[in-house]
Parts: sequence; C-alpha cells; structure tokens
Amino acid sequence: MTRYKLVIEYKGTEFAGWQKQPDALGIQTAIEEAIYRFSGQRAKIYAAGRTDAGVHACEQVAHVDFLPFKNPMTPFDIAKAINAYLRPRSVAVISAEPAAEDFHARFHALNKLYRYRILNRSACPTMETGLLWHIKKRLNVEAMQEASTFFVGHHDFTTFRASQCQAKNPVKTLHRLDVIAKPYDPYGGQDITIETEGRSFLHHQVRNMVGALVLVGEEKWKPEQIKAALSAKDRKAGGPTAPPEGLYLVRIDY
Amino acid sequence: MTRYKLVIEYKGTEFAGWQKQPDALGIQTAIEEAIYRFSGQRAKIYAAGRTDAGVHACEQVAHVDFLPFKNPMTPFDIAKAINAYLRPRSVAVISAEPAAEDFHARFHALNKLYRYRILNRSACPTMETGLLWHIKKRLNVEAMQEASTFFVGHHDFTTFRASQCQAKNPVKTLHRLDVIAKPYDPYGGQDITIETEGRSFLHHQVRNMVGALVLVGEEKWKPEQIKAALSAKDRKAGGPTAPPEGLYLVRIDY
Repeated sequence: MTRYKLVIEYKGTEFAGWQKQPDALGIQTAIEEAIYRFSGQRAKIYAAGRTDAGVHACEQVAHVDFLPFKNPMTPFDIAKAINAYLRPRSVAVISAEPAAEDFHARFHALNKLYRYRILNRSACPTMETGLLWHIKKRLNVEAMQEASTFFVGHHDFTTFRASQCQAKNPVKTLHRLDVIAKPYDPYGGQDITIETEGRSFLHHQVRNMVGALVLVGEEKWKPEQIKAALSAKDRKAGGPTAPPEGLYLVRIDY
Repeated sequence: MTRYKLVIEYKGTEFAGWQKQPDALGIQTAIEEAIYRFSGQRAKIYAAGRTDAGVHACEQVAHVDFLPFKNPMTPFDIAKAINAYLRPRSVAVISAEPAAEDFHARFHALNKLYRYRILNRSACPTMETGLLWHIKKRLNVEAMQEASTFFVGHHDFTTFRASQCQAKNPVKTLHRLDVIAKPYDPYGGQDITIETEGRSFLHHQVRNMVGALVLVGEEKWKPEQIKAALSAKDRKAGGPTAPPEGLYLVRIDY
C-alpha cells in the first residue's frame, strides 16, 4: 500500500456535500467511483474537512491508500486517470503526491482557511450563480469589520455551532477573521469577502458567524452584539445560518 | 420618448448570442420580453456589440427608448423591474441612466475592451465551467507575448475575420493586445488572460487572433508567423477560431 495526498477542487452546487449520502451524490463517492473505474480498487478517501451540500473547495485535501497498479503510474498519471472518470462532474484532482504512511488529512491539519463571498448589489449574479450569497440591500461594511474583531481569539463558540454539531469541545481559536470589500462592478455593486483561519472549526461555524455579521451589516445588530452572543453560549442567541453557496474551503496547511 | 443607456451583464452559455434567433433565445429578446412584461411597451434595444452564442459580457451597453410609464420610475426602478422579469436567466441590467436623445450605443462607442480567458492545466475547470477555454498542454506564454506585438496597430485583418463577416473595411486599429499569465492554482495551473482594445472589431476577430496565439503557445507557429498571416490577407492563412466560452466583452468607452 502507498498513501497519497490528493488536492481536490470542486463546485459544490450539484453535490450533497463531501460525505456519502444514501440517496444523493457525495463528492467522496464520486471520487471513490472514479478510482474504482480506472483501477479496480475499492479505496476509501479521507478528507480534511467534510463540506456541506453546496459548499465549494479550492484545495480540499484527502488521503487514500493504493495497492500497486498493474502498470506503474506517476502521481500525475493517477490524478489524470481519476479526472478522466470524474468528467463531466464539477470536481477535479489538481494534485496527487505520495505521502508518509501515517499522513492523515484531517488529524494532521494545522490550519484551515475558509472564504465566504457575498455579492452585495440589487442585480442578481449572472456568471457566478451558485458561487456567492446575493444580498440586495446595501450592507454596512465598516460595522461588519468592527464586529469581526469580537470573533478573533480563543472563545466558546456554542452560539455559532449547529445544534447537531458533535464536537466534544466548543472552544476554538480563530487566528483571523477579515471582512474585505471591493467593487464587483463599476455601478456600486460590491464583493464582500470574509476570510477566516483557524486550526479547526465547528459544524456550520463559518456560516453562522457570517449570518451574524450580515445582521450587523444590515444594522439590525450593533457590532457589540457579537460579544454578547458569544457570551450567551446558546445557538438561539446567534443569527441565521448563511447559505452554503458563498462558502469555500480554500486551503489547508500541514 | 426618453432614451436610456443600459449596462448589461450576462453569462452567454444559455443564449444563442445577443441577437434574436428564429429558434433559440437571444439576450436581446430576453430583455425586450422582460421590458414588455413590466411595462407593456414593445421597445427595441440596440447593443454596442452583438456577441456570439456562448460569449459573455461584463458591461455590454445598449440604448432603448421608453414612452412615459404609468407610474413615474427612477432609472434604478427601471433596472430593478427588468431584472425581476429576467430571473432566473443569467442576465442582469446593472445600470440604467437617461441618455441624450441621439445617443447610439454602437455608433458612439469610442473604445471596446475584450478579454479572453484560458485555463491552462491538465485538470478540467470545476467552478468556472463555460467561463474559460480549457487547454491541457502547457502553453509557451513568452512566445505568445512576443507574437501579440504583431497584432497591435493599424492592419488589414482579413486573415482574422470570419468568412461571413459583412464589414466593408477589414482595416482596423488595435490599441493594445496583452497576454497576461498568473497562477490559477498552486499546482502549476495557469490562467492566461488576453486583453485587447480598439474602436471596433471584425466578426470573430478576437477569437481568431486568440486561435493563432494559441498555435504560437503550442509551438506549432513561430511568433513571426502572425506577421506573415496578416500579410496573406486570407482567412485560410489564419489559425482556428477559439471557442466562445473564453470571451468577454468587458467595457465600452464613450
């Protein structure tokens, strides 16, 4: 057996999320099927982060063990062969490389970068449908930036995790959370990008933090209410969950 | 009658191009139908550039004459009303403003900027399917950059216009043609963007220039062959026509 590290890019729209689902296609299943079709091997792949339905990835990382192939294959050949059987699905292996036999995509991750994209303008998205959250009403970006500082650091994130989240410990450290606005078009449309980094995140944590930041941007919440919400340690004290289509698992560092 | 200048963004994938088609949806028809549905007016819209099927626009410009509306509408209201009836199609009016009564979107255009995007890597696109030309084999960008200089300036572009092009004069002036490469992912994938500006272009001119530049990038043509192809004044001396999905009408200056 040789362990490989795969880097995987996907548009989440057509998938039921990373994980296998009884009646909807998971990205994991799509890749495992592609591996089986080119190699005859029933390999199981383990991802660093199990993204939800509709969530995208620029560089998801997974590990997988392969038996020797009938004909020797370079890592590039393996990626190419998997991709050939993934078409026309919107998922591709953009890198494959041999890894240490104990390399674990999830447990060895030291840092994860997530990005959330909001299109803030009256007109709908056209080219990027499914790739961002469309919010028509102008958001107060400065207030969102002020609010974002309350999330950074070591906190109990109970208020911002899904009620079904199974993690034992709701305390996490957020290294960074930036709210960056730039023009999307020259007519006032803005692209609001929220980037956050940490070693690990709770279920729905990024989408729930974004949901609360949007309440601040809409001026329904004062920035300080983020602090009060964290202190409440109660999901009911949080805001709504932002939709999955704006979320990207961007990069994982080891 | 009041003349309006509309700025329109679209993803060309689902459309038969800008113009009305007997049996496939043109972007023009989609917008004229939306106008009719909100206002009851059978207005005709005139675009600066009639893009082909599959070609996108960031800021297409069109003019249209409206009769007074039953209830007064601001330009923003008009854009919003058109967009409401364009949904869920991938086209949106991102700006509307009153224009001089003799304003003509096509004849008054002083400069147009087109962009052509190539994804140059082995793996298929995932998030941007339909939004770029996927070329697997590594292209020689420096050779393409050298070749691009032969296009700039005042030339007879007969070799690079569609055989069915109806323009009387094949002589055009290209102000700029840049080939810009940047990383698309951290694993060697590159985004090759070709930008070109001029007052007007012949039918298929940008796609035909890109087709020839890709021959240079593939090292099937030497850069100097662009010069020889221009001198031949014969479409058969050109390269292939690049596919529509990589092309964007970016901006029009008046």
